[in-house]
Amino acid sequence: MKIASGVAATGFVSASGNAMASEVPLKNIFVHHVFFWLKEPKNNEARAQFEKGLRELIKVPQIQSSHIATPVESPREVVDDSFTFSYMAFFKNKEDQNIYQTHPIHLKFIEDCQHLWEKVIVYDAMD
Amino acid sequence: MKIASGVAATGFVSASGNAMASEVPLKNIFVHHVFFWLKEPKNNEARAQFEKGLRELIKVPQIQSSHIATPVESPREVVDDSFTFSYMAFFKNKEDQNIYQTHPIHLKFIEDCQHLWEKVIVYDAMD
Repeated sequence: MKIASGVAATGFVSASGNAMASEVPLKNIFVHHVFFWLKEPKNNEARAQFEKGLRELIKVPQIQSSHIATPVESPREVVDDSFTFSYMAFFKNKEDQNIYQTHPIHLKFIEDCQHLWEKVIVYDAMD
Repeated sequence: MKIASGVAATGFVSASGNAMASEVPLKNIFVHHVFFWLKEPKNNEARAQFEKGLRELIKVPQIQSSHIATPVESPREVVDDSFTFSYMAFFKNKEDQNIYQTHPIHLKFIEDCQHLWEKVIVYDAMD
C-alpha cells in the first residue's frame, strides 16, 4: 500500500471530502494565491459569472490542484476578510506557472472577467 | 483501491515530492493563509528562529496539512512579493480553526516569535 501511505503523507482533503489527519507539511509546491475584490460583491449575477470563469480557468493543464473559496469573516484585526473570492492554484514549479500565465485559457479568463473586479492581489510562494 | 483513487482526486503533491496531475479542485477545506513581514528579513538568525517557530506551530493537531514558503519574486504589478514568509494551514472546518487559535502550541508560537515580525496579514477562506 505504497500509494495509501502517500495519501497519509499529504494529509490532504480529497475532492470527495474525506479528510486525513497528518502533521506532514506539503513539499515542492508553487502556491499561486489570488484575492479578488469584485466591483459589485453583492451582485449575484456578477458573482456567478466570475465563479464560472474561475471554474474554466482551473482547466489549465499545468494546474496540479486548485481551491476556489470565499472569505471567512473574522473580527480579528489582522484578518483581511474584505475580498470577494480567493483563488488558489498549485503548480509543480515556476516553469509551469510561467506557461499558465500566457495559456489561452488564462488569457480568456482575464478577457471575460476583468471587467468584474476592481482589485487583485497575487501572492506567489514556494517552499 | 478506494484510497488510491482518493489520491488521484486530490491531484496533490505528496511530502515525498511526487506530483499527481488532476483538474479536480480541492473541496471542503478551510484555508488559513498568513503572510509575515519580518522586522529584519535579511537577518538569517531571525529567519531561522522564525521558521523553527513555524515548524513547531504546524504540530497543532487540528492542522490537516500545511505549507511554509517564501516569496517568488515577480515584476508584475499585481503580485505582492514583499512578504518574508508565507504560512498556510488547512483545517477541516471553522470549529477546528477556532480550537487552533487558542491551542497552547499556537500561543507559544506567538509568544516566542511575535517580536520578529512587523506586519501580518491573515486570509481565511472556505469553499
